[in-house]
Amino acid sequence: MKYIKFIIILLFQWPLHTNAQPGESDAKMIRKIYDESLINGQSYHWLHDLCYNIGHRLSGSEQAQKAVLWAKSVMDSLGFDKVYLQEVMVPHWVRGPKEQMYYTLNGKTENFNVIALGNSAGTPPLGIAAPIIEVKSLEDLNKLGREKVQGKIVFCSRPFDPTPIETFNSYGGCVDQRSQGPNEAAKLGALGCIVRSMTHAHDDFPHTGNTRFEEGVTPIPAIAISTKDADKLSNLIKKYDKLKFTIKLGCKTLPDVLSYNVIGEITGSEFPDDYIITGGHLDSWDVGHGAHDDGAGCVQSMDALRLLKRCGIKPRHSIRAVLFMNEENGLKGALKYFEEAISKNENHILAIETDAGGFSPRGFGFENNKEKWTLVKQWAPLFEPYQLHRWGEDGSGADISPFRDKTKCLLAGLRPDSQRYFDYHHADSDTFDKVNRRELELGSAAIAALMYMYDRYGR
Amino acid sequence: MKYIKFIIILLFQWPLHTNAQPGESDAKMIRKIYDESLINGQSYHWLHDLCYNIGHRLSGSEQAQKAVLWAKSVMDSLGFDKVYLQEVMVPHWVRGPKEQMYYTLNGKTENFNVIALGNSAGTPPLGIAAPIIEVKSLEDLNKLGREKVQGKIVFCSRPFDPTPIETFNSYGGCVDQRSQGPNEAAKLGALGCIVRSMTHAHDDFPHTGNTRFEEGVTPIPAIAISTKDADKLSNLIKKYDKLKFTIKLGCKTLPDVLSYNVIGEITGSEFPDDYIITGGHLDSWDVGHGAHDDGAGCVQSMDALRLLKRCGIKPRHSIRAVLFMNEENGLKGALKYFEEAISKNENHILAIETDAGGFSPRGFGFENNKEKWTLVKQWAPLFEPYQLHRWGEDGSGADISPFRDKTKCLLAGLRPDSQRYFDYHHADSDTFDKVNRRELELGSAAIAALMYMYDRYGR
Repeated sequence: MKYIKFIIILLFQWPLHTNAQPGESDAKMIRKIYDESLINGQSYHWLHDLCYNIGHRLSGSEQAQKAVLWAKSVMDSLGFDKVYLQEVMVPHWVRGPKEQMYYTLNGKTENFNVIALGNSAGTPPLGIAAPIIEVKSLEDLNKLGREKVQGKIVFCSRPFDPTPIETFNSYGGCVDQRSQGPNEAAKLGALGCIVRSMTHAHDDFPHTGNTRFEEGVTPIPAIAISTKDADKLSNLIKKYDKLKFTIKLGCKTLPDVLSYNVIGEITGSEFPDDYIITGGHLDSWDVGHGAHDDGAGCVQSMDALRLLKRCGIKPRHSIRAVLFMNEENGLKGALKYFEEAISKNENHILAIETDAGGFSPRGFGFENNKEKWTLVKQWAPLFEPYQLHRWGEDGSGADISPFRDKTKCLLAGLRPDSQRYFDYHHADSDTFDKVNRRELELGSAAIAALMYMYDRYGR
Repeated sequence: MKYIKFIIILLFQWPLHTNAQPGESDAKMIRKIYDESLINGQSYHWLHDLCYNIGHRLSGSEQAQKAVLWAKSVMDSLGFDKVYLQEVMVPHWVRGPKEQMYYTLNGKTENFNVIALGNSAGTPPLGIAAPIIEVKSLEDLNKLGREKVQGKIVFCSRPFDPTPIETFNSYGGCVDQRSQGPNEAAKLGALGCIVRSMTHAHDDFPHTGNTRFEEGVTPIPAIAISTKDADKLSNLIKKYDKLKFTIKLGCKTLPDVLSYNVIGEITGSEFPDDYIITGGHLDSWDVGHGAHDDGAGCVQSMDALRLLKRCGIKPRHSIRAVLFMNEENGLKGALKYFEEAISKNENHILAIETDAGGFSPRGFGFENNKEKWTLVKQWAPLFEPYQLHRWGEDGSGADISPFRDKTKCLLAGLRPDSQRYFDYHHADSDTFDKVNRRELELGSAAIAALMYMYDRYGR
C-alpha cells in the first residue's frame, strides 16, 4: 500500500526530472540495504577495532599513521576496485604533558580542568601567571581595549544557548570564542586565553578544538576549561579580582608531516569518470577515542560501499569512500582531495559527509545545487520508513566544502540526532561505549541508500 | 514566513473542525514552552533525585512507598490546584537473594548472568537441577509435547529481529517467550524456564520483566538470561545434551499491599469536568534506577504541567499529571484510575502516556478516536521545528489502555527515538547516567505543547 501511495505522490505532486522513475523496486532495494546493515553491519566492529587498538589519532601522530594503514587494510579486504592512499602534508601540533591551571590562596592550591586548544602556544616551564579578565563576547573584549587587557589572561565565558533544537546552532553561536578569542586577546596584549568548553553539558570534561592566529600575531597559550570549572572561575574572580592564576602548557608546533587520505572505490560501469563519494575524517583530537568524531563517519563510509556491493548493486557512476586526514586542525586532506579531483577531471556529482556523530540518523542537509536538491527531495517518501524526515537545504560538512561554489556537485551531510553530540565533542568522553550499534548502522544504511538512489536517478 | 506557510496549508489543504484556528500565537506559545523546558526544566533534577535518593521501586516495596511521598511533595511544591493520592491494592512480589544458575563439569562450576522474572516461583533452597531443552518459539515448545518437556528446564532462545527500525517491533516479536513461555512450559510439566533477555544488545545484563501464569497453572521458576550467556548456553547444550543445570531462586509472592497513584491537577476554567491527562508509571522493576523506565515519564509528566503553568496558560479543561502505580506487574493503578474516572463521570478527552524512555522525542502515536486524530494531525507543521515528525495512528501506552474502546478519549503515546531503549529496559543498566538532559526536556515540552493545543482546539 505505501508504495502505491508513494508512486501516486510522485506522479501527481512533483514533476520528475529524469526518465527513470523511482518505484517499488527501489523501496525493496533500500530495505535490502538496511537489512544488510542491521544484520551484518561491519561498522560497529570496525569502530571497536579503531578505538581500542589505535585510539585517538591527531594529524601527524603515530596513531594517525596507524589509522591510515588500518583503514587501507580494512578496505583492501572488501574487494573494492581500487584502494589507495593520497599523499598530503599535515600540521603536527603536539600537546605535551597534561596541562595545568591553578591558583594559590591562603596557602591552598586549587586546580582546574583545562586542556590546550590546538595551535596554542606553550608556556615557559614555570608557566604564565596573571589576573583574569572575563568577557562574554569578542565585541566586549575589543571594547575593553589594550589598556585593560594587556598583561592579563582573557576568559571568554559565554555559555551555550540551550534553546536551539539543533545543538549545532548553539555551537555556532559560541565557537567564535574558541576559534578567534585567543587571536583577539593576543592582539590586545593578553598573556593567555581561557575559553569555556563548547558543550551544553555541565561537567568536568574540558573540550579542546582548533584556534587560529592571524599571520603576524604571535600565538599565546590558549586553553579550554570545563563548564563546571568555568562557573567556579567566574564566581571566584568576582570575589578576588586581583588573584593571579598560573597556566602551564607544554604544547608546540613541529614541522609538517607527510600523511594520507585513504580512498576506496567501486568503479562505475557507465560513467566511470563521474563520482559519488561519502566521507568522514580519519584524524581526531588527541582525547578519548575520537569515536563519534569522527571514527563513526569513517566506518559508516566504508560500510556504505560494502553495503552497496553486498546488495549486488553495480553502480553506473564511480563510488568512493574517502577518509580525509586533518579535518580537525587544517583541512589539508580535504583541500588535497579537491585539488586532485579537479586536476584529474574527476567530475563529482554527489558528495556526502558524515561528521556529526554516530547517532540515530534523522535526515540529510544539502547545499550547492538547488536543482538536484529539488530532485532528491522527491525521494523523501522512500526514506520515511527509516525515520529520515529531515531533507533541509542547510549545509553539508567541512571536508567536502572545497567543492562548494567551485563545482555543481550536490553536497550532502548526514544529520543524526544532535542532542548528545556536544556532550562528547573533542573531549575525553568521546569513547566507543558512547556509540550505539544500531544508531551507527542506521547511518551507514542511510548513506548507502542515498548513494544508490543518486546513482540511479541523480544525473 | 513559516507561520504564513502553515496558515496557508491549514486554510487550503485541510478542513478545520473547530471555529478557533491555530496560528502564529500558538507557534509562539509552543516556542515559549520549549524555551522554558530547555532553560529552566526541572525534569532532570527531579529524575536525579528519584534515582539517587530512592532508586528502583517495585510495586509493594518500601521504595515504591517513598516514591509516592516524594512525587506528592514535588507536585505540592508546584502550586497545582489539587495534588492527591489514589488508593490502590498492588501485588507484592519479592526477588529474594541474587539468583543463581550454574552447572558443574569436570569439577569446574560455571555461572550464568540470570535474573528471576516477575511472578516467578522460587526454588527449594538447594535449587532445581535438570537438563535444558531449547526452543525457538512457543509453537515449537508445544509441538515437543509433555513427553519431551516434563522434568526439564525449557530455554526460550529466539533472539530479537534486528531489522525493524522501531525496536518496539522487535520486542513485540519476542516478548511472548517471556510473558507466556514459563506458563506454557509449566503446563507441559517443565521444572523451570529460561528466557533469552529482551534486548538487541549483546552483553552481560539479564533483563527482567513480567511473566504470567494462567489460573490453575502452578507457577514454576522462570528466569531471564543475558544475551551473551544465552549464546553460550545454546552452544553448551548442543555439545552436552544431558548436562544438568542448577537454578536457585528465593523469590516469592507476598499478600497485596496498599499503594497509590499520585495525581496533580490544574483545574479547567471552562470545562472542569473534562480532562486532559499525561502520565507515566512510578513503579519500576527492582533493578538499576528505573531511570528510562519510567522515571523519565514521571518527571516529564510533572514538568509538563509546570511548563503550562509557568507559561501563563490557564487551561479550559482540567489538566492532570498521573503517576500510575504498578504498570510493570499488574497494571492495578491504571485500572483503578479508569474505574474512578468512570464512577466520578470525569470525561477524559485526551490521555498521553510517556513510557518509552527519556530519549529524543520523534513524535506521537495515537489511537481510539479517528476523528480527533485527523484533527490533531493538522497541527503537525507547528511541531516540525521541534523535529516531531511522527504522527502515526499506531497505539499509545499500557496505563491509558483501559480507556480504549470503552470511551472516546483520544489516546496518545510519546514516541522517543527507540534505538537505545531495550539496551537498558528492565536491567541493571537502566540508570540515571543513561539519560541525556536535553532529550528528557524535549519530551516534557512536546507533551506540554500537545496538551496546550488540545486544550485550545481539541473539543
